[in-house]
Amino acid sequence: MQVRFSYAERAAYCKNALAKKLFLLMDGKKSNLALSADVTHCEDVLALADKIGPEICILKIHVDILEDFDQTFPLELRKLADKHNFLIFEDRKFADIGNTVKLQYEKGIYHIADWADIINAHSLPGSGIVSGLMEVGLKKQRGLLLLAEMSSANNLFTKDYAMQTLRMAEQFPEFVIGFISQQKLSDDPGWIYMTPGVQLQAGTDVLGQQYVTPEIALVKHQSDIIIVGRGIIKAEDTLAEARKYREAGWKAYNVNCAK
Amino acid sequence: MQVRFSYAERAAYCKNALAKKLFLLMDGKKSNLALSADVTHCEDVLALADKIGPEICILKIHVDILEDFDQTFPLELRKLADKHNFLIFEDRKFADIGNTVKLQYEKGIYHIADWADIINAHSLPGSGIVSGLMEVGLKKQRGLLLLAEMSSANNLFTKDYAMQTLRMAEQFPEFVIGFISQQKLSDDPGWIYMTPGVQLQAGTDVLGQQYVTPEIALVKHQSDIIIVGRGIIKAEDTLAEARKYREAGWKAYNVNCAK
Repeated sequence: MQVRFSYAERAAYCKNALAKKLFLLMDGKKSNLALSADVTHCEDVLALADKIGPEICILKIHVDILEDFDQTFPLELRKLADKHNFLIFEDRKFADIGNTVKLQYEKGIYHIADWADIINAHSLPGSGIVSGLMEVGLKKQRGLLLLAEMSSANNLFTKDYAMQTLRMAEQFPEFVIGFISQQKLSDDPGWIYMTPGVQLQAGTDVLGQQYVTPEIALVKHQSDIIIVGRGIIKAEDTLAEARKYREAGWKAYNVNCAK
Repeated sequence: MQVRFSYAERAAYCKNALAKKLFLLMDGKKSNLALSADVTHCEDVLALADKIGPEICILKIHVDILEDFDQTFPLELRKLADKHNFLIFEDRKFADIGNTVKLQYEKGIYHIADWADIINAHSLPGSGIVSGLMEVGLKKQRGLLLLAEMSSANNLFTKDYAMQTLRMAEQFPEFVIGFISQQKLSDDPGWIYMTPGVQLQAGTDVLGQQYVTPEIALVKHQSDIIIVGRGIIKAEDTLAEARKYREAGWKAYNVNCAK
């Protein structure tokens, strides 16, 4: 087995300042755990962020499922991100033409570009989607993940699609920081891979979401960050469960790193 | 050239009540024009809806680019839809797993399911996205369009992807009403095809959007509805321009219909 670079070593390969910051933050906190806080009230997101914050490198939210969003929410969330040293990831999955995503990212009620460190987008509409988002996000030192694969059943992603997504990312290394994917896609150590659908026990939900374990994601598939939602937030003791995931994730990544 | 069914004739083939209503509405108004009202203030959407309403079968919006959205906006828009007899299409391009899109469609600030007759989604995440949206929308008699093709440059859509999207739609004929596509995909006259990126003059924008004319969309590619945005809303006399598009669209569709 090839020896794997540590997160700290990989920071040197990033062409985007936020990606570098993320790798160093992960190294410092010994965490490759992203919490997916899929709850529908602001106070529940903030409570999770404050409680689980010390365990995670990223808090991932869907701002558009919050029933009581108001303009104080991003400010409160930013305070907690600074307090616990994690990045904020708005899981918007932009999926439109460049001219439209630019407006969706910058304007509207949410002004996502003003508070989300990381966003993601589908490569499907073509490279204009990246150019459009970059026009808004680059000057704010944000980072974009492209979706190269998903974990839902019967999805239409193909190996060729993932490779075309990688090629698209390679055109914009100053703004694209990596991928939502099930596995590593390239030998360039500067890309960050984040894998959703991770639980300590593998399985499927009723709407076709398929789960893998941290070991499968991080060792077998060589991903970098595990995104865990229901596995933590549905637990009785969410903090204890988050610790389990952080420890399992950290151990799994480091299996093949030099000692 | 094969004789084409009229819109009124096609209503009989729809398995979704909204699709049927749309075909009959188009026949009554002699319009296959959808207006894409990509503006960032509610009053501008409402002004366009009131002015251009008589010319269109559908008003397409992006609710999440509105800077001053509030809960009265959907109510005002509904009044205008009833006054001028058009359907409301929220161009959300849902693109996540079933569990998430369900929340995005029903919850949040926007409560899209409460006011949008039509929504659209990418088939990319797999059929769970349709099941998730259908759990919310079917009982409200809504309709879903799947994106089978896009008009942006260097997009990753393929012929095979469009066919898989058609197969997915065929699993949910009670909720899927048709497709966002550049062309007709099936011989079933019940599906509705809507083509974005239409202008009276063909061309490309700076972020890679590619335009076709109404004749190319409706005659050559056998689509049903032309979605026009900047071609109308950037015009000096928006109403006169909308009329031109409506007349061009109506004439083009009817070229091959029985007299």
